[in-house]
Amino acid sequence: VKLLTLARDLQRRKGRERRGLFVAEGVRSAEEIVRATVQITGALVTPELTKSDRGRNLREALDSRAVEIAEVSDRELASAAGTDTPQGVIVIAGVPDYSLSTLRLPSASRLLLLDGVQDPGNAGALVRTAAALGGAAVIALPGTVDLWSPKVVRGAMGAHFQVPTLHADSDETLGFLADRVIELWVAAADGQPPESLSPPSALALVVGNEGAGVSAAWRRRAQVSVGLTLTAGVESLNVAVAAGILLYELRDRVAQS
Amino acid sequence: VKLLTLARDLQRRKGRERRGLFVAEGVRSAEEIVRATVQITGALVTPELTKSDRGRNLREALDSRAVEIAEVSDRELASAAGTDTPQGVIVIAGVPDYSLSTLRLPSASRLLLLDGVQDPGNAGALVRTAAALGGAAVIALPGTVDLWSPKVVRGAMGAHFQVPTLHADSDETLGFLADRVIELWVAAADGQPPESLSPPSALALVVGNEGAGVSAAWRRRAQVSVGLTLTAGVESLNVAVAAGILLYELRDRVAQS
Repeated sequence: VKLLTLARDLQRRKGRERRGLFVAEGVRSAEEIVRATVQITGALVTPELTKSDRGRNLREALDSRAVEIAEVSDRELASAAGTDTPQGVIVIAGVPDYSLSTLRLPSASRLLLLDGVQDPGNAGALVRTAAALGGAAVIALPGTVDLWSPKVVRGAMGAHFQVPTLHADSDETLGFLADRVIELWVAAADGQPPESLSPPSALALVVGNEGAGVSAAWRRRAQVSVGLTLTAGVESLNVAVAAGILLYELRDRVAQS
Repeated sequence: VKLLTLARDLQRRKGRERRGLFVAEGVRSAEEIVRATVQITGALVTPELTKSDRGRNLREALDSRAVEIAEVSDRELASAAGTDTPQGVIVIAGVPDYSLSTLRLPSASRLLLLDGVQDPGNAGALVRTAAALGGAAVIALPGTVDLWSPKVVRGAMGAHFQVPTLHADSDETLGFLADRVIELWVAAADGQPPESLSPPSALALVVGNEGAGVSAAWRRRAQVSVGLTLTAGVESLNVAVAAGILLYELRDRVAQS
């Protein structure tokens, strides 16, 4: 398949899932792919790329890794891009091959589960937040935006390659949590403040949809409901901000028992 | 001036500043304006609005406040909108009249200063975060996106009416901090962790640009540099996530001295 055709196909979730590939758009995203230990299939570039020093360095890095490169027009690049400003470069790479059954976790683990998170910017910020705060994995449950879509990849700024990031269905995830003895906590507006709780060494925190929060099914399954006390009259925090505060509060604390 | 012409003019920062007005686009933003104690100048609506129960309720709320309403076409509404989906309604309202000299602050105050924050989504999330975590004011320093632009207003989900939100220049802000004896802290990657610090009762936290962080000038002015310890290899958190964690950590803690 020609790289341009391939990149266009990878704009669709089905195309990405069938091929096990994703695209990173823009100079910064492409740089992160080159730095990561991820399999690169190829790259599309336009003359715009090598007009800047940073773009030239990126081109050299791709060449030195013997990446197959297709030189395309601005218009062709735009036709394969999911973001407005691909900045002259789209890199095609392999989705890292993580699965729940083979996931390796330290004994003290904080996992982040996304239940119906729909905004790509929020999903990207959540992956970035989990990576920055020592999260052991990010698991996208059904109803969550594809974490390998171009906007999520771009928003996460390379975090996909610093924390295992995968999709899983509900049964598979529940089995995994039981097998590994990972306690399930849910973020909810009426939950207890994190300072008042004694987190176990292995914990999975579920955060939910931007409007509706975590679904009733996942709320029922959780052992503990955790939440932040907000100023009266303010309904909620952005989901990535809330997850950041909770992961930070729960990061180094383990119940003394 | 016709409301349509006015709304179009308010898409530009200069128009907003000259007239002291801003626009809220979409049903949710419009609902928040109606709930807030803010002066409403008028509204543009299309037939789309009253096709839903929620839209009809909004229309009734506007009518019951005797708001001047212009019925326009989808095309006209789009011509006056700064977001892609105005959902049949744009409300024009007055920017609340806050100034540093008249700002009323509780003795224990946490202020958030934005130094060169450029992404409207981040700016909106920052206002929302400050409101939710008890911030006493949000002050946008030069180089920051206009906090009254449609995308910021929409992203903040009503928070502009729950925390005083204003723009100020650097000299004015420095004079204000000195007059009110508010300590200046800066968020920086190499700052000390918040848990290790003893915050004063009145504190202003400066957060910075998405790429460059806080400017050298504001870093120099700060008494304390505060930062979060991140996983090795991860460069930074999203600015709203970082501000959320810091404001949460600093919220209820005051130095015992």
